[in-house]
Amino acid sequence: MVLERKQQLSLCDYPIIENVGENDVRIHIKSCGICGSDIHYYLYGKIGDFVVNEPMILGHEASGVIVEMGKNVKGFKVGDRVCMEPGVPSLRSKETLSGRYNIDPTVRFWATPPIHGCLRENVVHPAMFCFKLPEDMSFEEGAMIEPLSIGMEAAKQASIEPGDVAFVNGAGTIGIMTALSALAGGCACVIIADIKQAKLDIAGKYKNIIPVNAKKQDIRETIADLTGGWGADRLFECSGFDGCYPDFFTMSANGATAVLVGIPQEPVPIDVSYLQKKGITLKTVFRYVNEYPKSLAQVASGKIDVKPLISKVFPFDKAVAAYEFAAAGHNDVVKVVIDL
Amino acid sequence: MVLERKQQLSLCDYPIIENVGENDVRIHIKSCGICGSDIHYYLYGKIGDFVVNEPMILGHEASGVIVEMGKNVKGFKVGDRVCMEPGVPSLRSKETLSGRYNIDPTVRFWATPPIHGCLRENVVHPAMFCFKLPEDMSFEEGAMIEPLSIGMEAAKQASIEPGDVAFVNGAGTIGIMTALSALAGGCACVIIADIKQAKLDIAGKYKNIIPVNAKKQDIRETIADLTGGWGADRLFECSGFDGCYPDFFTMSANGATAVLVGIPQEPVPIDVSYLQKKGITLKTVFRYVNEYPKSLAQVASGKIDVKPLISKVFPFDKAVAAYEFAAAGHNDVVKVVIDL
Amino acid sequence: MVLERKQQLSLCDYPIIENVGENDVRIHIKSCGICGSDIHYYLYGKIGDFVVNEPMILGHEASGVIVEMGKNVKGFKVGDRVCMEPGVPSLRSKETLSGRYNIDPTVRFWATPPIHGCLRENVVHPAMFCFKLPEDMSFEEGAMIEPLSIGMEAAKQASIEPGDVAFVNGAGTIGIMTALSALAGGCACVIIADIKQAKLDIAGKYKNIIPVNAKKQDIRETIADLTGGWGADRLFECSGFDGCYPDFFTMSANGATAVLVGIPQEPVPIDVSYLQKKGITLKTVFRYVNEYPKSLAQVASGKIDVKPLISKVFPFDKAVAAYEFAAAGHNDVVKVVIDL
Amino acid sequence: MVLERKQQLSLCDYPIIENVGENDVRIHIKSCGICGSDIHYYLYGKIGDFVVNEPMILGHEASGVIVEMGKNVKGFKVGDRVCMEPGVPSLRSKETLSGRYNIDPTVRFWATPPIHGCLRENVVHPAMFCFKLPEDMSFEEGAMIEPLSIGMEAAKQASIEPGDVAFVNGAGTIGIMTALSALAGGCACVIIADIKQAKLDIAGKYKNIIPVNAKKQDIRETIADLTGGWGADRLFECSGFDGCYPDFFTMSANGATAVLVGIPQEPVPIDVSYLQKKGITLKTVFRYVNEYPKSLAQVASGKIDVKPLISKVFPFDKAVAAYEFAAAGHNDVVKVVIDL
Repeated sequence: MVLERKQQLSLCDYPIIENVGENDVRIHIKSCGICGSDIHYYLYGKIGDFVVNEPMILGHEASGVIVEMGKNVKGFKVGDRVCMEPGVPSLRSKETLSGRYNIDPTVRFWATPPIHGCLRENVVHPAMFCFKLPEDMSFEEGAMIEPLSIGMEAAKQASIEPGDVAFVNGAGTIGIMTALSALAGGCACVIIADIKQAKLDIAGKYKNIIPVNAKKQDIRETIADLTGGWGADRLFECSGFDGCYPDFFTMSANGATAVLVGIPQEPVPIDVSYLQKKGITLKTVFRYVNEYPKSLAQVASGKIDVKPLISKVFPFDKAVAAYEFAAAGHNDVVKVVIDL
Repeated sequence: MVLERKQQLSLCDYPIIENVGENDVRIHIKSCGICGSDIHYYLYGKIGDFVVNEPMILGHEASGVIVEMGKNVKGFKVGDRVCMEPGVPSLRSKETLSGRYNIDPTVRFWATPPIHGCLRENVVHPAMFCFKLPEDMSFEEGAMIEPLSIGMEAAKQASIEPGDVAFVNGAGTIGIMTALSALAGGCACVIIADIKQAKLDIAGKYKNIIPVNAKKQDIRETIADLTGGWGADRLFECSGFDGCYPDFFTMSANGATAVLVGIPQEPVPIDVSYLQKKGITLKTVFRYVNEYPKSLAQVASGKIDVKPLISKVFPFDKAVAAYEFAAAGHNDVVKVVIDL
Repeated sequence: MVLERKQQLSLCDYPIIENVGENDVRIHIKSCGICGSDIHYYLYGKIGDFVVNEPMILGHEASGVIVEMGKNVKGFKVGDRVCMEPGVPSLRSKETLSGRYNIDPTVRFWATPPIHGCLRENVVHPAMFCFKLPEDMSFEEGAMIEPLSIGMEAAKQASIEPGDVAFVNGAGTIGIMTALSALAGGCACVIIADIKQAKLDIAGKYKNIIPVNAKKQDIRETIADLTGGWGADRLFECSGFDGCYPDFFTMSANGATAVLVGIPQEPVPIDVSYLQKKGITLKTVFRYVNEYPKSLAQVASGKIDVKPLISKVFPFDKAVAAYEFAAAGHNDVVKVVIDL
Repeated sequence: MVLERKQQLSLCDYPIIENVGENDVRIHIKSCGICGSDIHYYLYGKIGDFVVNEPMILGHEASGVIVEMGKNVKGFKVGDRVCMEPGVPSLRSKETLSGRYNIDPTVRFWATPPIHGCLRENVVHPAMFCFKLPEDMSFEEGAMIEPLSIGMEAAKQASIEPGDVAFVNGAGTIGIMTALSALAGGCACVIIADIKQAKLDIAGKYKNIIPVNAKKQDIRETIADLTGGWGADRLFECSGFDGCYPDFFTMSANGATAVLVGIPQEPVPIDVSYLQKKGITLKTVFRYVNEYPKSLAQVASGKIDVKPLISKVFPFDKAVAAYEFAAAGHNDVVKVVIDL
């Protein structure tokens, strides 16, 4: 599944010869989700500084089966069902040694030019970034671990105190993943806001996730009602929409922590004196670090159910149609997955 | 309900004249749980340095209705259903100002000699330590907020990362409260160990709480199986039994945090070099601080259900019988509550 | 010393009758510094929403001698030399109970309308917010504890790891106080930037504070040289100048913490995606919480020397001249103090 | 310098062929300190489970000059003066990825059987664990970075709040290194206790380190005097002596953090209920993680001066004599260094 150039996808034979290094495994891909970034590359040929100058295979949310193992690999066997972290950092960088490999600037990440993605028959990957799927977890669920891990990273960064009330701005895939992660991660309830009712309807089917349509309801009032006027203890900005910033922090309790997950295109206006007066701390999320095992544990236990978010599954031979469907941006679609 | 002296309880008229100060409310008590410490005072007349030298009213796990308000009290009205934190610290101590009023050495705590408890018709208390019950929460559940808050404090101290696996040692009231708090507070699952099967049966009815009978099963092996050999990320010692210490930390993952909740009578042997090699951090719990609103939120949302832990309810006129029943220590009894 | 109205100061008899409550002391003021906020009220008659509608006594950076004590006060005696935290929060607010009394919205703070300041002969204050001066500390130094505590709060918020390199933007009083606090608080060295050479000269006299004139030198390059290209581990924005924001975060190491101390008048543009990519956390400072004893300890030990920052001392009868001198904004003046 | 067997050292030609891997450098050793663990292996032939079954080269506190570089090595050149972290963890372990490579159980550490140490002419080491010495730092100081890093790790683990008062138990090398690290790391002053006056005399020469002879003075009283009765905010146990445990925590303030650095041979008795009542947190230290650059920064800036702790320097051909001298345990000797 190759992005030849902007708006030109093709499902073709594309020769990639990858040797299995001594710490690697080869995985036969079984499921691969379509991410907003995949769509962005498809439609615009670039994201920020990352430009698709040569044909590039898309896809980074994937699961599969191990078909070959490097000689040093332990803890796996051929036939193991796994999902994979798509980013491979330098193991020698200062960031990685400090436990923050996600911000290692030399990280190689699937489907980020010029690195090929994994929407293909098989792929070689370091075993240390592969994680076994529990027996009763499907490959589609396995592919969902990637976007879930962003929500899990956000929940971890928030340092939730058990019983906190959270506010999530934006009910797209990442917003819902964050809401689920915050809820399973200790919050008593999560208020989620969007302007698209169809997305809120999906989020609102989960117990203790309270959808608010920002066009029709006053978010601040809803939060005030739910918290006796105190405000949200933990806030997550997941829309990436710069226009939300002037209001966003006013949902917060004094002493709150706000986690910025959505990626605005431009600098956003932030009222520093307001943050100071309220004693707000800002944390940021960039992908995830050490979250795959935690995400798997939350799904395995049933604390997080990602199945309602798999809106549609396409077979591999309809992959181009899958991208077109995903690119259409239906409001009631969360995640489109391609099965191989 | 007065403890006249060791092993001598009586339900009698006992004149206490309490004025409602300007920041206080008077509460008509509706439900009051029996705590292990109440039983201890009843049976032995003392706990450590705290000795019952004069008749003392028992009880500190209570809920009720506001019947009178001081002139400065805001946010409440007569008729409000509330539960109450039983400890009142100095508001001027260094500990309180630092956000740790639980370790203020001058705290006055119900039913800790010479302070009377609240198992009586009504009691005067600072409004700031009273918390409204949600509409659909019963008074019995309200009385359970006190022991739950100890578990909630333990979960907070553990700084759980969402998706962690927890191990709780001891399935008494506090052990189960801690397991529920850790689970609702972010853990994917909780392994709880005890030697009394009846207690484990109660704990095991909750989803994702995995009971282990330490007499029949190998706890370490169970944890290893569940975690791929990694161990528990967060550990809670809730038995207070010094004999458990040599094994307790061996359940832990490298880099784990262990929270000591149970109160051993004597110094316990701790293998410091083992803790060092595994990079374990030890946190301690003493009562709770700022946990009542969080506990209420977890129960209100349904994330924590304390109802199965209310084993038996007695009317006030059977209060002595209630104490005798609780003191008998039935293995299948978690909490005994007295209704007024 | 009364601010009658904007730009109208007078040293006059102003009758204030204050009773000493049971937890209060009466302090005879000996030294009082002039703060930027005092100057701002003097020149403009308001700061943000705080407007001087009635005559108001200025001053909040003060030290003095206890002359009278309330009946419950312990730990002090008449004649004790003290400095005082100028803000008195509600002791019953949720913020205060959580250890963050600085963001209690009902705090009463000296010289913030309509609360009178302390540039007067004596003042009544809660004993819990008074702190004894060590024997060899002057009253002028005692008055400096207030601005120092803002720097100390910033250093605490930064969670400095011993050996970190810090960058401080702005070499005004608060910038220098922050640099000193960060250095004494664990940093190996502090780079401080400003465009006023006279201020940098004062800062640069301290060992391990490295001044950089932003007009003449490339700050980023200087930091890169000092850190082998890594960047500053901890950043402190102390200028309050919104124009600095586009560059400010580029001084940072990956994974850094930035503390926002200066108060911009308007929302500032922040490049969220840049913060995300670098894994930067933002903390905010609003006054200080529990910092007076720590500030006193750092000065008493000699780890922080505030004496070089006391630029000029005026007697009380020249207080109006002192304000005019301070308002002139001489670049080589850090702090002006009035002695009573 | 080979430990042939218990109590049998010899300076001999010992053939080790080490190839320089692509990420490695070869270092010509210039200085190597003698550690307590070296002495222990020398005298007893083992430490815990680590037994010297075959001849082993001693030494792990070293500095030197790069003489050869692997092809992937960047940021160094032949001739660079460096010091080296002696432990090399797996870069693929869960502990390392979490930023805690010190507790990776597969770490290979110099002079820990069966891994040879570095008291030899040259050694091959991963470049990522080599750190350049500042120009004006001697090789002997460079060798001191290893023991200093243990103190620095302890100071980091303590999460010192700037202005805290620390108590260090034990004035051996590690005790003094910890005291210096805590002081430079933010503490206002450090009280250090021992029963050997000569060691206290060395520690006491540093400003703001207050020595207390536990045989002659009451430590608790000294701390109480210095803190107005409050106690030490941060405690460091550096003696490893189990007999100190009953008293150790009584030096603490409420809410303190205690860091366990010394390694007791046997489990120690800890009064958990006392820790709970005081709200004490226990942290542990095992070697160090990411501390070399921080240690170098503190020494380079002059905030920590290790030179007074280099008690005696021997040339390489007197290495056996150096070990005998160090093993004699003179009270006024802190560190013995061998120059090559």
